[in-house]
Amino acid sequence: MGRIAKDPEIRRKEIIEAAEALFSEKGFSQVSVSDITNKVGLSHGAFFYYFKSKDDLLKAVITYRVEQSLAEIEKLLAEVGPNPLRKIQLLLELSTRGMSEDDKFIEYMHAEGNASIHAEYVRQSEAKVVPLIAGIVGEGVKEGIFDVEYPREWVELIIPIFDSLQHKPKAMSNEEYYRKMRALYSLLARSLGISESALAVRYRR
Amino acid sequence: MGRIAKDPEIRRKEIIEAAEALFSEKGFSQVSVSDITNKVGLSHGAFFYYFKSKDDLLKAVITYRVEQSLAEIEKLLAEVGPNPLRKIQLLLELSTRGMSEDDKFIEYMHAEGNASIHAEYVRQSEAKVVPLIAGIVGEGVKEGIFDVEYPREWVELIIPIFDSLQHKPKAMSNEEYYRKMRALYSLLARSLGISESALAVRYRR
Repeated sequence: MGRIAKDPEIRRKEIIEAAEALFSEKGFSQVSVSDITNKVGLSHGAFFYYFKSKDDLLKAVITYRVEQSLAEIEKLLAEVGPNPLRKIQLLLELSTRGMSEDDKFIEYMHAEGNASIHAEYVRQSEAKVVPLIAGIVGEGVKEGIFDVEYPREWVELIIPIFDSLQHKPKAMSNEEYYRKMRALYSLLARSLGISESALAVRYRR
Repeated sequence: MGRIAKDPEIRRKEIIEAAEALFSEKGFSQVSVSDITNKVGLSHGAFFYYFKSKDDLLKAVITYRVEQSLAEIEKLLAEVGPNPLRKIQLLLELSTRGMSEDDKFIEYMHAEGNASIHAEYVRQSEAKVVPLIAGIVGEGVKEGIFDVEYPREWVELIIPIFDSLQHKPKAMSNEEYYRKMRALYSLLARSLGISESALAVRYRR
């Protein structure tokens, strides 16, 4: 491994991907720098050419995750076309779908002791996601679809709801999940100034 | 100190109060059991008669804080009388007032590294606060004041918003704070099925 010198950017990405897999599997504190360098086939010393510390690497892993998610979301949004309501419906589908998926990284961030990692993830996500969604809501307001006076603030208020929903998907029965979704759709529709049925087309089918 | 043997419950409360003060001042990890026993005038060994560990004490401190807040809230609610809208207005005033107050305990829980303590606080608060507010919203629905299909779920969705607002009061300018409050009142009023002016009587005066 590594006889031929690799592009530093490629190497960096390999380290990030290996670290993401190891953190998800064992938890951040249980993974040593050696575990990561062993997986990638890199010397311990060489690691510090790419990252100042394990904490520095963690931030890069989080940035990588956030950018990956965002690229995926933007691709799907482009497919939906220019309608702001359809875009919001799509985002809603994606975020509530995530709630029942088995994402080890999310799970690991919500585990006891990883809360400051989770806070960093939330911070980085919000920095990217808030302007994206606020833009969509703003378009909808201009087109007379939504009635929201402060789109950016609306998004900032809404995001913690979605984050909290990801904390406890497993404790919910189907009935509880249904009630929570109904309450969520009602709150979102009313605060956007549209009817619940307009928002929930996909959810209700 | 302590020549006359004290009631264990009183002693326990003294330890909790001393610990709360020390945790708030220095942060949980910077406070040793000896710091606490010195403050109360108790032997190191005697401490473990009251609490299994420092973590055990922390949970008791949080419970104490939550119960204190709740007792205060219930007292104020009783003064307001039976009107559910007035009760919600009061709760809203109390929670947004808290945002600008200088609460060292809240600050300390939101500090880097204390996130799991914060999570425990949120867990304990929600267990007490959700039924209280859901009951008020439910009364309002019965009286035809509010239009909320799932009061309990409505409260569960709303609480993370208030929690997130407490995270970053200091980064906000007056203009940003005003916009956030307007967005918040709009979201709450609409989701309760009342007019924003009905909800915001006190806020707007």
